[in-house]
Amino acid sequence: MQRIAIDMDEVIADFITKQLRLFNHDYNENLTINDLMGKRLRELRPQLQKEILEYFNDPMFFRDLDVIPDSQSVIKQLSEQFEVFITTAAMEFPPSFNAKYEWLKEHFPFLDDMNFVFCGNKSIINADFLIDDNARHFKNFRGQGILYTAPHNINVTGYDRVNSWLEVRDYFLKS
Amino acid sequence: MQRIAIDMDEVIADFITKQLRLFNHDYNENLTINDLMGKRLRELRPQLQKEILEYFNDPMFFRDLDVIPDSQSVIKQLSEQFEVFITTAAMEFPPSFNAKYEWLKEHFPFLDDMNFVFCGNKSIINADFLIDDNARHFKNFRGQGILYTAPHNINVTGYDRVNSWLEVRDYFLKS
Repeated sequence: MQRIAIDMDEVIADFITKQLRLFNHDYNENLTINDLMGKRLRELRPQLQKEILEYFNDPMFFRDLDVIPDSQSVIKQLSEQFEVFITTAAMEFPPSFNAKYEWLKEHFPFLDDMNFVFCGNKSIINADFLIDDNARHFKNFRGQGILYTAPHNINVTGYDRVNSWLEVRDYFLKS
Repeated sequence: MQRIAIDMDEVIADFITKQLRLFNHDYNENLTINDLMGKRLRELRPQLQKEILEYFNDPMFFRDLDVIPDSQSVIKQLSEQFEVFITTAAMEFPPSFNAKYEWLKEHFPFLDDMNFVFCGNKSIINADFLIDDNARHFKNFRGQGILYTAPHNINVTGYDRVNSWLEVRDYFLKS
């Protein structure tokens, strides 16, 4: 059985919406997703990089993120024909461990938690496919990288790309 | 560069000594390591299996474990010639995430935390070698499993075995 590894933030967990809402509130701005095309918030507001990263050290930041549309139903379908692992770069924000675990148990109860991986360098992942919004993780990945579109990566080229979970479904399940 | 993945409990973290001390105190027993040869505490006292597993749900259980002798110096040496990852089955005890992370940062400060992996099913690990006290993790592991001797595994056969970190050093570094 082939194995698909799936990232969390900006792939199944809607990280940007909450980040923008908090940032706009705290700094009296009105930034939108369109302002983030091709870059991250910390690149758009480099003078506030430290403060922006600080959001992720709140142990609860990751607990109430919205689920990316269709990810639940498509991953449920995929898990019938593939081994599915969730592989998230949680070591970048250790206070997030528990919130990420609880979020996964809440929104993806059909996945086995023995298939959750909290890591940093994703070249340690032994899978046939990796669906991720960060192309840097594909560099030393042994399988096929699939770039999940997020505002920051819209100008990245050179990888298979999917723009939605319906496209992921078609990528793996179209007959 | 070849990659070595290393387990935590009973390989670099002395888990049994603390478990026995707590158990003997709480249940007025005098069990020793010798009583655990070839089995786990929960197999020796199956009527207390639930209580024994409960110890690991204390978020601090894993925080103050002793370091297995020579593991620090040998892993430091290994990390000069190999990529070293720490791969622990933390998903079995989610409350342990933070204690395990802090323990690693305290005792193995020379390792990059991007090389820490908290997982469940270790077949997801892409490495050339896996040093582990649980032979079950070798079954679908793509590299070479190396069984680190622990009381519970002394009767397990069919794998390369090391009895100490000095033997690990010889396994990888003897000229």
